[in-house]
Amino acid sequence: MDRIFGFAGGDSGSWKVDSLRAVRGEPLTPVARLSVVEPGMAYPAGARWLLRGVMSNERYVTHEERSGLRAVQEGLGRPASVSGAMIPIRKNPAWWELAQDERRAIMEEQSKHIRTGLRYLPAISRRLYHSRDLGETFDFITWFEFAPADAEAFEELVAALRASEEWRYVERETDFRMSLG
Amino acid sequence: MDRIFGFAGGDSGSWKVDSLRAVRGEPLTPVARLSVVEPGMAYPAGARWLLRGVMSNERYVTHEERSGLRAVQEGLGRPASVSGAMIPIRKNPAWWELAQDERRAIMEEQSKHIRTGLRYLPAISRRLYHSRDLGETFDFITWFEFAPADAEAFEELVAALRASEEWRYVERETDFRMSLG
Repeated sequence: MDRIFGFAGGDSGSWKVDSLRAVRGEPLTPVARLSVVEPGMAYPAGARWLLRGVMSNERYVTHEERSGLRAVQEGLGRPASVSGAMIPIRKNPAWWELAQDERRAIMEEQSKHIRTGLRYLPAISRRLYHSRDLGETFDFITWFEFAPADAEAFEELVAALRASEEWRYVERETDFRMSLG
Repeated sequence: MDRIFGFAGGDSGSWKVDSLRAVRGEPLTPVARLSVVEPGMAYPAGARWLLRGVMSNERYVTHEERSGLRAVQEGLGRPASVSGAMIPIRKNPAWWELAQDERRAIMEEQSKHIRTGLRYLPAISRRLYHSRDLGETFDFITWFEFAPADAEAFEELVAALRASEEWRYVERETDFRMSLG
């Protein structure tokens, strides 16, 4: 019943790390490659660090919003999606002290997080992993995949999110840009 | 940064298991005692089974509801609270497939889960541990503490929850009744 995905940074893995930037807070040690380890699989030897996360139930998306997302989204692993990004973030204690309705209001009604993501579908595929309850350093890991031609759209997406009210609660964020092969 | 609590069933631990009943689904192996293991502490030798869970952020409670709860609730470990109950449950896949607004509507607007719990405060102290994302067999462990004089009130509380719409999604539930000492 292991549900935990691993993200191992080191010298091996199918994703080549093209750049790594500490957007906020302490950086992670730079690595050449990144390996995604499915639940229950062995971690690669010689990794410099390992992040962990689980795919969990949705915490904010309503039924209607989800229908909108599902109508257009595509999965990971599309042949043309040879560009990727991994963005682990940690939110501050003030965020976690908010009640559910307050977090939802900041995240969507004020920051339009869900609507912004939808605008870039299906080009920018996205998957969220939850890390906080596992005792990890980061709270979430978001994984993105897209074709090189959509790189500019991806920059717009992350810029919009970083300019949002929700991002005022982000206290640590590292941005990895990667390519397959 | 370990956040994981353990609940070890066996022959040791400060809680004596007075009864154990499989309300729904497969039972757990009967044990004489239960030990609560704080994050980072060693598990007792010879445990027959171990459940794990984390205290996490609230998933449904609104700011207003939380203010109401906080105004009257008391913590665990009160000297007079020598009676306890541990109720691990697992919800079915249909529950987890629901969106956030649908789960909230069933849980509170239809089932009055939060309001029902509030009605029995401060007598029945309660703490929720989340287990699902850890890959555990159960999704949640709810822990209750109360004075022996409030045992009847506790029966009312669990009966009300089990009669609710929300409980139609519960596919496994075991009910441990315990006493301190």
